[in-house]
Amino acid sequence: MRLAEYTDYTLRVLMSCAAQPDGLITIAELAERHGVSKNHLMKIVNDLARQGVLQTTRGRGGGLCLAKPATDIRVGDVVRNSETDFRLAECFDARTNACTLTPSCRLKGVLQGALDAYFKALDGVTLAELVAPPPPRSGGRRSVPIVAAVPVRRPAAKRG
Amino acid sequence: MRLAEYTDYTLRVLMSCAAQPDGLITIAELAERHGVSKNHLMKIVNDLARQGVLQTTRGRGGGLCLAKPATDIRVGDVVRNSETDFRLAECFDARTNACTLTPSCRLKGVLQGALDAYFKALDGVTLAELVAPPPPRSGGRRSVPIVAAVPVRRPAAKRG
Repeated sequence: MRLAEYTDYTLRVLMSCAAQPDGLITIAELAERHGVSKNHLMKIVNDLARQGVLQTTRGRGGGLCLAKPATDIRVGDVVRNSETDFRLAECFDARTNACTLTPSCRLKGVLQGALDAYFKALDGVTLAELVAPPPPRSGGRRSVPIVAAVPVRRPAAKRG
Repeated sequence: MRLAEYTDYTLRVLMSCAAQPDGLITIAELAERHGVSKNHLMKIVNDLARQGVLQTTRGRGGGLCLAKPATDIRVGDVVRNSETDFRLAECFDARTNACTLTPSCRLKGVLQGALDAYFKALDGVTLAELVAPPPPRSGGRRSVPIVAAVPVRRPAAKRG
C-alpha cells in the first residue's frame, strides 16, 4: 500500500512550479533541490508536459512552469495519471488471474470501492491548496511559505 | 498504489475459512487451491493466529478455522494488519525524509486523509460479506457460492 517514488517526485515537481507562479524553474534546479537525477526528472517533466499540466521552454532562460492555474489541477488526477499499478489483488489483472474464489467473490468490488474513496479524497484538493502557507498558529512555529526557498527566474521576453 | 501479494493471500485464506464455518481446512488444501507454496501460507497463518483471527489445530484431522465469527472480522483491520509499507511519500518516513518542501507542505496530511478514506471504506465491510453469495440476477449467470468448491472436513471430536 504505497505510492511509487515516481508519483512522489511528480507531486514535488508540480508543487515547486506552483510555488513560483511568475517564474520558471529548470530541471537542474529541481534535481539539486530534491537530490534526484536530472534523467529521472526529465521523464517526469515530459510525462507532465504530454498531459498538458506543465509547459516547457527550451534554451537559455528557459525552464518549466504550470500550463494551467494550480487551482485547476486536482491532486487526484495527478496521482491517477502517475501511478501505473493498481493491482490490489490478483483478480484485478484478468490476464493472470487464477484465483478460484473469483466467481462469487466480492473482494474486487470492495477494494475498488476503497480505491474510489481514496481518489475522491484526493480529488477534493488542488495543487494550489498543497502549497498554500498554513494559517499561523498562535504561539507555534512561524509558517514558512514554500516559495521563500526558491530562487525565481522570470520568463525571458523572447523565447527560442 | 498496490497491495502486497501477502495481503492478497491473507484475504484468500480468511475467505476460504469463512466459506466453510463448520469445517477445517489444511494448509496443503489452501496451497493447492491457490497455487502458492505451503511455506508462504504457513507464515500468513501464523500471523493470523497471533492476531487472534485464526485458530489452528495440529495433528491428524487438524486444520484451520476462524477464531471468531466472520461477521466480527473487518476487512479494513485485516488489510491494516497485513500491510507493512504505508510510505505514500518520502516525508512519511521521518528517518530518511530529506524533502525541502516539508516545512510548509500539506501533501502528507492530504495523502493521510485519502488513506483514512480508503480504510474507512474497508472497515465498513466484514469477512462474512465478502463470501456471501451475491443476489441472483434475473437472466444472468447463476451465482456460485464459494463454499461449493470446498471439500469440507469436520473437526475431529478429539484433537491431539
